[in-house]
This record gives sequence, C-alpha cells and structure tokens, in this order.
Amino acid sequence: MSIITLTTDFGHKDYFVGALKGKILSEQKEAVIVDISHEIDLFNTLEASYCIEAAYHNFPKGTIHIIGVDSERVGDTQHIAMQWDDHYFICADNGILNTLIQKKIPQKIVAITIHDRLNTDVSDMDVFVAVACHIARGGLLNVIGKEIPSLKPVSVLTSSITDDLSEIKGQIVYIDSFGNCVTNISQKQFNDTIRGRKFEIVIKNKKFSRLHKSYSDFPVSDVKQLKDLEGDFLALFNENGYLEIAIYKSNPKTVGSAATLLGLHFRDTVSIKFK
Amino acid sequence: MSIITLTTDFGHKDYFVGALKGKILSEQKEAVIVDISHEIDLFNTLEASYCIEAAYHNFPKGTIHIIGVDSERVGDTQHIAMQWDDHYFICADNGILNTLIQKKIPQKIVAITIHDRLNTDVSDMDVFVAVACHIARGGLLNVIGKEIPSLKPVSVLTSSITDDLSEIKGQIVYIDSFGNCVTNISQKQFNDTIRGRKFEIVIKNKKFSRLHKSYSDFPVSDVKQLKDLEGDFLALFNENGYLEIAIYKSNPKTVGSAATLLGLHFRDTVSIKFK
Amino acid sequence: MSIITLTTDFGHKDYFVGALKGKILSEQKEAVIVDISHEIDLFNTLEASYCIEAAYHNFPKGTIHIIGVDSERVGDTQHIAMQWDDHYFICADNGILNTLIQKKIPQKIVAITIHDRLNTDVSDMDVFVAVACHIARGGLLNVIGKEIPSLKPVSVLTSSITDDLSEIKGQIVYIDSFGNCVTNISQKQFNDTIRGRKFEIVIKNKKFSRLHKSYSDFPVSDVKQLKDLEGDFLALFNENGYLEIAIYKSNPKTVGSAATLLGLHFRDTVSIKFK
Repeated sequence: MSIITLTTDFGHKDYFVGALKGKILSEQKEAVIVDISHEIDLFNTLEASYCIEAAYHNFPKGTIHIIGVDSERVGDTQHIAMQWDDHYFICADNGILNTLIQKKIPQKIVAITIHDRLNTDVSDMDVFVAVACHIARGGLLNVIGKEIPSLKPVSVLTSSITDDLSEIKGQIVYIDSFGNCVTNISQKQFNDTIRGRKFEIVIKNKKFSRLHKSYSDFPVSDVKQLKDLEGDFLALFNENGYLEIAIYKSNPKTVGSAATLLGLHFRDTVSIKFK
Repeated sequence: MSIITLTTDFGHKDYFVGALKGKILSEQKEAVIVDISHEIDLFNTLEASYCIEAAYHNFPKGTIHIIGVDSERVGDTQHIAMQWDDHYFICADNGILNTLIQKKIPQKIVAITIHDRLNTDVSDMDVFVAVACHIARGGLLNVIGKEIPSLKPVSVLTSSITDDLSEIKGQIVYIDSFGNCVTNISQKQFNDTIRGRKFEIVIKNKKFSRLHKSYSDFPVSDVKQLKDLEGDFLALFNENGYLEIAIYKSNPKTVGSAATLLGLHFRDTVSIKFK
Repeated sequence: MSIITLTTDFGHKDYFVGALKGKILSEQKEAVIVDISHEIDLFNTLEASYCIEAAYHNFPKGTIHIIGVDSERVGDTQHIAMQWDDHYFICADNGILNTLIQKKIPQKIVAITIHDRLNTDVSDMDVFVAVACHIARGGLLNVIGKEIPSLKPVSVLTSSITDDLSEIKGQIVYIDSFGNCVTNISQKQFNDTIRGRKFEIVIKNKKFSRLHKSYSDFPVSDVKQLKDLEGDFLALFNENGYLEIAIYKSNPKTVGSAATLLGLHFRDTVSIKFK
C-alpha cells in the first residue's frame, strides 16, 4: 500500500481532481490518495511550495507527493521526480521544490523521460500518475528518468540574517484561511541569532516584543478573561517552525484577521531586530 | 479497519486537513478517513454541533469522530473523548457535544490525560489523532483519560414547549448551502404536542399552515405544473428530524433562497402555534 | 473492491457528502469512494452531464457513478440505473445521461423499483446507495429495477453541422474554474468536416484561425518569450475532445479569464466556419 498525496490548483468545482484520482486507481488500485490542497492560488508555485513543505512530514516515509501547479513541460522546464528526506516529489522543475533542497540535500533527482513511451496526447497528469505508480510499485527513479545534479535555479523568497547579527529579514510567504500570515523566518534562525538579547518583531507599523507559545498563550488575570483577548494580535513560531503573525480567534468574514486588520499581503517584508 | 471522520473549520485551501490525514495514516495505516465538513464557520461550535449530530448516525457503530473546531485546551476547557450511542467523539469540551447528551445518556466520557506523555510541542490535533488511533486499535477510553461524570455545562440554543402546550419556540441553528434554514424544533416535539389541533409555523412575517413531506411535495394540478412551483417556500421536517424552512429548488446565487428571501439569520426565532 | 464516484451539487460546507459516504460505508465497508465534484451549480443537470462525461473514462471499467443533482423522483421523472461503456450510472432520469447515449448505445437501462422495499422515509440518496452497493456486490440491474428501452427524451444543447458542411454550430456548455470555456463541438466533428479547408472559429466578436495543441503551444522566438504570452487567448481541443476557448495562464481573480475578458457565458453560441 502506497500513499499518494495531491497538491494542485485545480479547485473543487471541476472534474479535474476526480479524473486524476481515477487515473491513479486505474493503474494502482490499492493506492491511498490524500488531498493536501486543490485551492492553491492558480499557477502560484510559492504557495504550493509552502504547502508541500508544511504537509509532507506528517506522512509516513515513502509517501509520494504529486504537485500539479504550473506543471506544463515547456521551454527549459522539465518534469522531475525527486527523492528527498525519504519522500518522493513529482512536479515540474519550476521552483516548487527549491525551498526544500535549501534545507537538506536531495537523495536523487531525475528529469522524467517517459513521455515518448506514452501516447502522444498524454497530459502532464498522465505522466505524473505513471511515475507515481511506478514508484508505488517499488520502481527505481532511474527507470523513468535521467539523473540530474540539481534543480533549475529559481529565485525564491528567502530570509536572511545581517552580518552583524542585528536583524533577521524575511517576507510573508503564505496567508492561511484564518488570515494568519506566515513568514519565511524560521525558529532555527531566531534561536541561532538571539544570543540572550531582547528582540522586536516589526511588520508594517506594528511591533511585537513577545513570542507566544500558542494562539491562546495570553496572561489571564482576574480582571481580564481569555474571552476579552479575542481579536488580539500575536506572533508565534507555528507548528511548521516559521514565524507567524496571527490573531487570537480571527475570522476574516466577521471580526477580521491579521491580514485584513494590519493590511498585510503576500511578499510583505517582516524583520526581527535584536538589541 | 476503523472509520475516522473529520469535522473542522480548517477550510480547503490550506494544508491543514492533509496534514491531519497524514498524522492519522502514519499511526494507523489502515484507517478509512471520511470528511464530514471542513467549512464549519470559524470557531462556531453550534454549527459543528449540528453537523456532527446530523452526520454521525449515517456511519457504522464504532466510528470515531474527530471534531477540530475551537479545540484549544485552555482555561477550564479540557480535551475529551466520549462514547455515545456506540460512536466515539473526540473534541474540546466546548459545547459541541452538549446537544447530543440531551438526547441520550453517554456511555462514557473521559478528560484526555495523555498530553504529558507526548512531546511538549504537540498540537491539539496530535492529541486527537493519538486518541483516535488508540480507540481504532480497540483501546479503552480509561487508558487515555480520566472518567468524568458529565460535560461542562454550556448554554446552547434549545427549543421549548410552553406549559400550556400552545406553542413550541425554537431558533435557526443552521443555514445550509442551499440557503435552507434548519431549526432546533424536532419532529418528536411536534408529534408530542399537536394532539390533533391545527398549527401555524411563524417565522419573521411569514406563516406556514402546512408541512411538506419532501421538497417537491406540492399539489400539482392540470393548470399548475411542478415547474411553476420552483421558488415557492415550504416547511418540512428534514431527514435529520428537525423543522426546516426551505424553498423548492432554491439557489442562493440566482433565484435566491429561504435565508435571503425571508431575511433569515442564524439564531432567529421560529415558533409553532397550536389552536 | 468497487469504486463508487460521487457527483453532486451538495457543496462542501454541509454534512451532506459525509452522510452519503457514511451510508455507503455502512453497507459496503470495502468501497473506495471518489469525489468527482460536489460544486455542480445547484440543480444544473447540464453541468453534471459534462462533468460525468469528462470524468468517467478515467476510472476502471465497472466503476459505479452516483450523480446526486436534481435527483428527486417526481412527476414522470424516475430513478434510473444505466450500464454504459462498461460503467454504471445511477441518477434521476432528468437529462444528465442523455449526452452519453448519443455517443454510444447503453448496455442496459432500468427504472429503479426498490423504493417500496425500503423504509417509507428513505431519501433519494438512500435509494442510490442501495443500488450502488447492490451493483458493487455483483448484483444484476434487473433485480433492483425494471428494464426500460431508453431514457426520457430531454432537450439538451447539441452541436450541429450545416448540410453544406460550411459550418459547425455549438454552444458553451461548461466554464471551468480557470475561466476556460468548453463547447460541445467535438474534435471528431471537426476532423470529419474540415476536408483540408481553412477554418475560422467565431465566438462573440473574437475569431481564431489556429488550433493550439496545448495551453502553452505558442510560437516562441528570440524576441518573444513564453512569459510574454501569458494572458493570450487560444482555442484548442481539450483532453476531453471538445473545443475550448482558453487563456494561457488565466486567473479569474487577477489577470482575468477567457470567460470574463470575452464576456462569455454558459449557453453562448460558438461556430467554426470553413472556406
């Protein structure tokens, strides 16, 4: 039994996701298929990148992850399969996996070469399914592709630490459905840099000098109930290890969210200053 | 093989639901996971309560239901597991299960106590998954929690019958995606109270003196076709046994719905008057 | 093991889809249930028709397709089960399957007759589930229904070729979540009619004289990069064999889509003129 996860921008209205699952089950009837997201912003490889990085480690080793976002094989963009941290990732070489390989060296990357063996009118998803099912059957990557030394270099949003260790600079890379804003500043960067100093998180004109342990980690006194704190801003390192600007019990449709109330957008800069 | 259902406010855009399924499959690879809803209004325990009550009985006995809505363990709110009507429910003790226990006495309720045995940075969902998989393996509730006599009392919307049996008063507790408005007045209350009298259902300035058996249960004559009745209001006891104000072939995006055309909202009052 | 697919207008917010899956698993615990779509426009049998036609052939022979759109058994509309192209389809006889039988003769159609054997308060979905599980167990259609010679005639949007072969006329029958507009003009019709002539596709005030092989099939030169072509209109026969008017890397929320930028709607006419 193999687990195959799906991350796409196909949406839920159309038959696309159902068709993709039908293709997989036609070839590998025992496959366990799990949706990670089908609501990735259309063609947004950065969002896909964050979602797959945040989701993959919750699955068992050996899980196969198909990522159908901007997956056309066009120009110098090849279809690739990558073995990394004992998981398998199948997508176009369009930057989606570049964040992963900055954290850990891939075990193997191949440029998929089976297109000629399939019908002339195969879709990108037909190719990804054929590769996924090959891996699910225990097949080797070299059989379906040609090993390549690395991914195509793609400029991705990255966080950085200034040379004098006075500041970590990053960006908002994901805004979730609660309106909480995830940055690319990691807890590891913070831990490596703080060296016992005080810190201030700065985003737009809002400053935070405290990190919460959880969304509800507020000091509650006799005069102030937790309920009174609904709507308060907070900063924390999320389950995925990244700095997040959030609101306790936010709701974009009613009370508002960190994104709407602070006017934050994808790619906005955030920094942590030490002193 | 165990069935584990999921009811959350996590939405479909983010990786949260996928990650939750990955956690379950990592621990219990044979689990059959079924989504009930991930579009519960954020932190809305009443909506979660109605959905789980309406859905659970469609599943086989022994099914395990994880409810991830407002699930932080904070203040005096504990994580609980409840065996009720031969099903298992895992959530925070925040009112979600209080409607159920008004209908039937729970077989067992435990306050979950395994948090100390898990890593310090476990999430609420890690705890729920550990408990669900323990139950799926046939484990006892007492092993993962301490038995408690009852749920925390929470004020929930309830319907009531006046002392003179002249009226049943209730509220709208759920508005579905067709815009149909479900109340908390049950068919049992109606049957126990009517005693052969005439009745009138009153909601805002609209009155109904007939109950439909189904959405299309209209008298059709030679001059009036069923097609002419599209858009007509109706009242019926729905599949779940609750009074519902509906429109025949409603469509909130086009012709309108009971909610939009009658201006009905969550918590609005409805009554059935007998005479 | 049987695969049962679901195509409905139930949406994702409510518990309806979860309840349906619970009913299936209660009766057929080994069933593999796959969602095709639950976001069909409410009561829109044409959309359901296109989705099921586009999705079914991706599944293995013997797959059972439940279609819960406008499924009330009312007036002269019966519940039916149809064996067609070695797949099974269960729905109301409301036009959803009429496009399929124009392409290939059904193997068998039965009007479902088990309603009397079930409880009096069964829902349409209870009936569909009972039939699907009967088929999944290898049961014959004649056991649960009475064979009928054909579907109820329903006027459906159809494309046509003029007698002088100068033009193919069709309509937009589906607009997907990328805003691409699918017509009911098939590649087969085009291939049978073109006879080496030039052609022009006309839709609203836009004309196309070239068919793309894929969304990214643009001539790319040194001066014009593929990236510059994002947002360009194109016409192609899609994976499902139908003419589609699309935009390269469209996004209805940002840069716009074929539907929004050309002002195209469901049922709009499109034609291919030959000369």
